[in-house]
Amino acid sequence: MCNTVAVTRARWTTETTPLPPHALEWLSRRVGLGEPLPEVPLTAPPSALSADAFEALEAVSFVSVEDSDRLGRSGGLSYLDLLRHRGYGTPAVPDAVVQPASPAEVLEVLQVCVEHDIAVVPFGGGTSVVGGVEALRGSKSAVVALDLAGLGSLVSVDPVSRVAVLQAGITGPEAEKLLGKHGFTLGHVPQSFERATIGGFAATRSAGQASSGYGRFEDMVESVRVATPVGEWVVGGAPASAAGPDLKQLVLGSEGLFGVITEVSVRVRPEPRAPRYEGFVVDGWEAGVELVRTLAQNGALADVTRLSDVDETEVALELAGSRAAAVKKYLRFRRIAQPCLVVLGWECRSRSATMSALSGLKTVRLGRAMGAAWVHGRFNGPRQRDALLDAGVCVETLETATHWSKVSELRDEVRKALTAELGNPVVMCHVSHAYETGASLYFTVLVPRDLDDPVKQWERAKIAASDVISRLGTITHHHAVGRDHQPWLENEIGSIGVDVLRAVKSQLDPTGILNPGKLL
Amino acid sequence: MCNTVAVTRARWTTETTPLPPHALEWLSRRVGLGEPLPEVPLTAPPSALSADAFEALEAVSFVSVEDSDRLGRSGGLSYLDLLRHRGYGTPAVPDAVVQPASPAEVLEVLQVCVEHDIAVVPFGGGTSVVGGVEALRGSKSAVVALDLAGLGSLVSVDPVSRVAVLQAGITGPEAEKLLGKHGFTLGHVPQSFERATIGGFAATRSAGQASSGYGRFEDMVESVRVATPVGEWVVGGAPASAAGPDLKQLVLGSEGLFGVITEVSVRVRPEPRAPRYEGFVVDGWEAGVELVRTLAQNGALADVTRLSDVDETEVALELAGSRAAAVKKYLRFRRIAQPCLVVLGWECRSRSATMSALSGLKTVRLGRAMGAAWVHGRFNGPRQRDALLDAGVCVETLETATHWSKVSELRDEVRKALTAELGNPVVMCHVSHAYETGASLYFTVLVPRDLDDPVKQWERAKIAASDVISRLGTITHHHAVGRDHQPWLENEIGSIGVDVLRAVKSQLDPTGILNPGKLL
Repeated sequence: MCNTVAVTRARWTTETTPLPPHALEWLSRRVGLGEPLPEVPLTAPPSALSADAFEALEAVSFVSVEDSDRLGRSGGLSYLDLLRHRGYGTPAVPDAVVQPASPAEVLEVLQVCVEHDIAVVPFGGGTSVVGGVEALRGSKSAVVALDLAGLGSLVSVDPVSRVAVLQAGITGPEAEKLLGKHGFTLGHVPQSFERATIGGFAATRSAGQASSGYGRFEDMVESVRVATPVGEWVVGGAPASAAGPDLKQLVLGSEGLFGVITEVSVRVRPEPRAPRYEGFVVDGWEAGVELVRTLAQNGALADVTRLSDVDETEVALELAGSRAAAVKKYLRFRRIAQPCLVVLGWECRSRSATMSALSGLKTVRLGRAMGAAWVHGRFNGPRQRDALLDAGVCVETLETATHWSKVSELRDEVRKALTAELGNPVVMCHVSHAYETGASLYFTVLVPRDLDDPVKQWERAKIAASDVISRLGTITHHHAVGRDHQPWLENEIGSIGVDVLRAVKSQLDPTGILNPGKLL
Repeated sequence: MCNTVAVTRARWTTETTPLPPHALEWLSRRVGLGEPLPEVPLTAPPSALSADAFEALEAVSFVSVEDSDRLGRSGGLSYLDLLRHRGYGTPAVPDAVVQPASPAEVLEVLQVCVEHDIAVVPFGGGTSVVGGVEALRGSKSAVVALDLAGLGSLVSVDPVSRVAVLQAGITGPEAEKLLGKHGFTLGHVPQSFERATIGGFAATRSAGQASSGYGRFEDMVESVRVATPVGEWVVGGAPASAAGPDLKQLVLGSEGLFGVITEVSVRVRPEPRAPRYEGFVVDGWEAGVELVRTLAQNGALADVTRLSDVDETEVALELAGSRAAAVKKYLRFRRIAQPCLVVLGWECRSRSATMSALSGLKTVRLGRAMGAAWVHGRFNGPRQRDALLDAGVCVETLETATHWSKVSELRDEVRKALTAELGNPVVMCHVSHAYETGASLYFTVLVPRDLDDPVKQWERAKIAASDVISRLGTITHHHAVGRDHQPWLENEIGSIGVDVLRAVKSQLDPTGILNPGKLL
């Protein structure tokens, strides 16, 4: 019954970072610029929410049917989402935005939605790049975006056990600020950090840029509080348990289909005293993979461990501006034919362990300036996409993970598939999350935008690359399934896996109100 | 159709290690000896398997209805199991033992069992201490033990990714031997190591004595191949994924209720070059907990990290025989009032990191002899239980895990509960698995056996202790649920969690043939 929360956040927008002149010059030379594609103002269709449903929702929580609020929760941040805001395609706009102020209110909202047969799309930071927050109504008469911005509290901190309970609507920076007052950090810094939320991290199995040190988000989670249509469920608790299957792992990655995550209990760590980031260069992709694998298999990973291939390194050096020429000259002097950039960052792990493991491998140290440059630009990727669209460039990313023995084959095959489909794209690749048995691969694709049908252009490329990815690795290492990866899920988990997810869904959400059209 | 496998293993037995005279003397003084309770020969009831079912099973796999084979798979190794072999209670004896020779044969056996409505109890090493392999038939007309001893191959090794595929029937020592030929180790060494199997480790979320270094068994698993009544399911694969919930975690810990694990793909590591184990002593339990927590929260745990409380340390020193007097004298000289033994062992982790983290803490080093003594006796616990029963002593263990802030309260409360229920037991406790946020606690209880009703004596104690454990921690950290922990499962995972498990069970095993009466 708390109607005091205002809908203030999560307006559909990106904070565009303009491209510097030398970047535009490089783009024009290497990719080719296309015709600018400006944003067009969107209009919201009339809300389909019935007066009864509106009243019932308003009796338990804050509700808005304002066009601006609804449009602000009409999708995520994929290239296809961006195109929808530029006149290609139509975003799915929710019929209302509901913003509960407590876990109890979330439960009440779900009850109302069950009674009125309304679809519910949980909405955190709205940073999904796989269509995970599209306001689809499925078979329901209406759909509401369930905005979790009202769940913004740090519930508790146990400094001895180093466990904190955070509400789901807290963003990355807010979490760090709240925990920082107690001397702790979560250490979870994905590229979406600035806007994405704790609930979203949990619902999508997010992985941060320092995952080699802090682990993936699911590695940090001790327990999860979930509002489901059949009641509240607190799952997990002890640091480890053999009390049957780990049901917490069923909620993590459930993308809002099983319930709405309202609170997450997480392991925290002391704030790093002297974080340090450095740049290195190795000669060639294979040498870089060997380096990261050596660190991973010797327990010597830096917290941040990133390896860029030759193409990504070229771009990184081009965009480094005035420093680039000197670095390139130095690399020629050191006879590095195929420079691949390695960024290592230490926050809680031991630098000396890493450096000792590196001692047998040929590396060129570029020092802390290159590390600082990476830190400076670590969140720029998403912001620059708008600028690239403005310049007529199609830009999107793909990601996966596979075992070490397949890392290079997977990279080669994805590049081939994208080139076959897109003509002459620039395909950059990096490893950003390393494990003992394998690593993630993250691709960034740049190509002049098809002027007739930019949507089809990307969809074709996505299918070709995803077929390769699905054959050689996981369809997604940290972007989740959403809508965009659905066609490949069954190949990954089997038809039995799909049936199991359906069975759990039916148990927890018998009328199917939760996030229809996603994951399954 | 392979009937060549003979039923040779897993005869119900323990290799008893006799107690040395000084141990008996200590027992007599500190616990009190009771009347010896010899084993009595068991007789198997007639097999209830129909001729049709026998024929159908024999058409697809090796089947035995011999009494000795059936009796050999009539339970596990809990104290209550031991009592059943000594005239108190009756073991549940399977109507047949089926021993398939391949994953495909396991699938065929399950099909026959579905058709003939026969319950199936997967049987590995038979080391369950929670009733997990009791041959219960539930509502079925007959029950077979599905012995996995025929699945004994190392399927593949990927030395670059350090991933090996092991069949489910391989025991701990066999796994080490097979992997050792490739220079690798699994590093999974629970107390049941000598008999327990890969499939059992996976089905029960086992944790080994070096879990602080190698992780729990589920941490090692990349994927699992499972035979279910609805078909074969391979779940998991990539080193990490965000493709929906982690369904592999639903199979791990499923205790044979969802399917029969036939193969497990695991992360392996190079065999340790120079493993080293050392003994230390700290003054008092709290100082010991502080020490282990410091190591865990600074990334400085040894692979083996064990802390014994004062009572367990006293027993360890008593049983150390001739060395004990000198050690005790040395500890008095060092003014250690409340000696608590700490055993640290390094196999793959860095000893210098541990020692550096220890530098600010007061410890007395006992050196490598004490480490070697621990290694020497690391599997003795289960074997000595028979000798203790012979001496009229009730001996059983309890285990849990909780957050650091509750570790000491939980220990105190369990001791109180056991003392209230058992009179004047010796209750020993140790931490053997440490995490950043908490630790396991393992209790060993010794008390003279109640001559009238030893079963009730232990059941009462178990209930009292488990109520405390369930309130302050997980009902089981690494023994699994089986039959014995069922009453506390719902408190841990909620009624919603129980319903979710039931929904998954119905999906994968619609007729309910798999391991009835366990877990749920």
